[in-house]
Amino acid sequence: MEHKLLLLTSDNPKYRQLLDSCHLPQLTLLDDDPSSILSANIWLAEPPLAAPLVGHAQQLTWMQSTYAGVDPLVKPRLRRDYQLTNIKGIFGPLMSEYLFGYLLAHQRQHKQYQSQQADKIWRPSSFKTLQGQKLLLLGTGNIAKHIAHTGKHFGMQVTGINRGAKPTTGFDKVDTLANLPSHIAQADAIAAILPSTPDTRGILDSQMLSMIKDEAILFNLGRGDVLDLDALYQQLLQRPKQQAILDVFNQEPLPANHPIWSLSNATITPHIAAPSRPEQVVEIFAANYHHFIKGQALSHLVNFERGY
Amino acid sequence: MEHKLLLLTSDNPKYRQLLDSCHLPQLTLLDDDPSSILSANIWLAEPPLAAPLVGHAQQLTWMQSTYAGVDPLVKPRLRRDYQLTNIKGIFGPLMSEYLFGYLLAHQRQHKQYQSQQADKIWRPSSFKTLQGQKLLLLGTGNIAKHIAHTGKHFGMQVTGINRGAKPTTGFDKVDTLANLPSHIAQADAIAAILPSTPDTRGILDSQMLSMIKDEAILFNLGRGDVLDLDALYQQLLQRPKQQAILDVFNQEPLPANHPIWSLSNATITPHIAAPSRPEQVVEIFAANYHHFIKGQALSHLVNFERGY
Repeated sequence: MEHKLLLLTSDNPKYRQLLDSCHLPQLTLLDDDPSSILSANIWLAEPPLAAPLVGHAQQLTWMQSTYAGVDPLVKPRLRRDYQLTNIKGIFGPLMSEYLFGYLLAHQRQHKQYQSQQADKIWRPSSFKTLQGQKLLLLGTGNIAKHIAHTGKHFGMQVTGINRGAKPTTGFDKVDTLANLPSHIAQADAIAAILPSTPDTRGILDSQMLSMIKDEAILFNLGRGDVLDLDALYQQLLQRPKQQAILDVFNQEPLPANHPIWSLSNATITPHIAAPSRPEQVVEIFAANYHHFIKGQALSHLVNFERGY
Repeated sequence: MEHKLLLLTSDNPKYRQLLDSCHLPQLTLLDDDPSSILSANIWLAEPPLAAPLVGHAQQLTWMQSTYAGVDPLVKPRLRRDYQLTNIKGIFGPLMSEYLFGYLLAHQRQHKQYQSQQADKIWRPSSFKTLQGQKLLLLGTGNIAKHIAHTGKHFGMQVTGINRGAKPTTGFDKVDTLANLPSHIAQADAIAAILPSTPDTRGILDSQMLSMIKDEAILFNLGRGDVLDLDALYQQLLQRPKQQAILDVFNQEPLPANHPIWSLSNATITPHIAAPSRPEQVVEIFAANYHHFIKGQALSHLVNFERGY
């Protein structure tokens, strides 16, 4: 049987070139043409591009997401009559670079020394080492596990939060979302690496945020809607020693008129913590394609109910 | 026998308080008085403060340095008729925080995103992950070993340079100083963590520096005199994609009129990568003191010939 692949990415020419070099058997790459939506039985797609079109598909049996986050595709009214797989396993090292880059830059006072250098001032000051600090990770999946491992390497105490306090290797402690308040009040660094699901949406609301201690640093790396951004903005205004490092937002790009852009204790980055590299996505797609044509179970299958 | 301790540090009151709480047997803490130089048989001292005074000592049998670097005390004309011990084992984690903080800040483009944030610009750009990059460490001692371990955690290939290419755990490869040119030309990140000895002084001269590739990042974390700072300044001017992160200098504080302060591709910090914390120094001193009074071998004994 011949399989027909539709590409829905922001860099189709790159994917076309990489897929050509894989010589996958019995696979035709369709043109970037609306009629391909009707005839393709496999989609390789970015979820925000695929979500508005998936209702029109007539032959779709498998969609490989190029992202980890598939929340646009698991919304209640969308079809679920196909297999959806996502990308896993490649983001941990990149997220860890991002998180520890900004965490160390903060703890080791990069901005202060940058400003002293501008004034040619030689003035050592004391700082807090990461050793012994408390790192709280909201999420205990592959990415969080990798971050936990890095945290342990730097001598931190690492607590993870997941739905059922399921014990997870690499964490000093794992607890449930219900017990988040007691942990968030003690943490020196907090990172949300959660998928967007009904359970996680809005959990970092004004009440939860208010428990974060002064001088703590908060990262949002997973999904924008986990966090009430306006509540965070108000809190950061009131508590200038707190820091927030934000890479994901409900609305992306973050609108230029949002006041959080201007806060000196907020760092805004344009969703760059852990991008999917086409080379890695194609490697995962090709492995899954071989499973697909043999009728074997696909890797990284998404559970539509759970949402990840 | 009663032992008499002289303190020569920039924070004697702190050391006095910490030592009092240790209740070390048969130990008298002398006053901060010039006559104590004559009568003390043990010194707990910062090398730059001790070096000009050590010639006047009359009873000195053991000096515990509060630093790792003891080069002021191993100069050829100074006395060597006492046991000199230094501080080891506490600097690795701090150096690693410093090095990876600045390395990640550079690779993950903190300054670029900071400037985009100031202009409220959302513009992702591509970057190089640390995974697969080549890290070259000049030195393979305790500190370098810890940094090597962190480098491996981030997926880097780590080469160490020492005098005899002595195999050292934690490095992918170890080679001699004589082969430095071939390694320095390939490295993405280079860190000098060398003591100041006749072998290491000036090894990063204009010729060696010229072999560093464009877009590489150079750290000097050990001793200022390992590096020709003026040659580095000239090179950074010519090759704006190279970066230098400098924490140690021949003359400290670095004079305000040195032009390297103003280079946008040089980061100057005031010798803060891995400070000795008095708590940790006193812990090492106390352990050594117990060896000393029992006539046992002291830990971290310096070889005056070798210089570390």
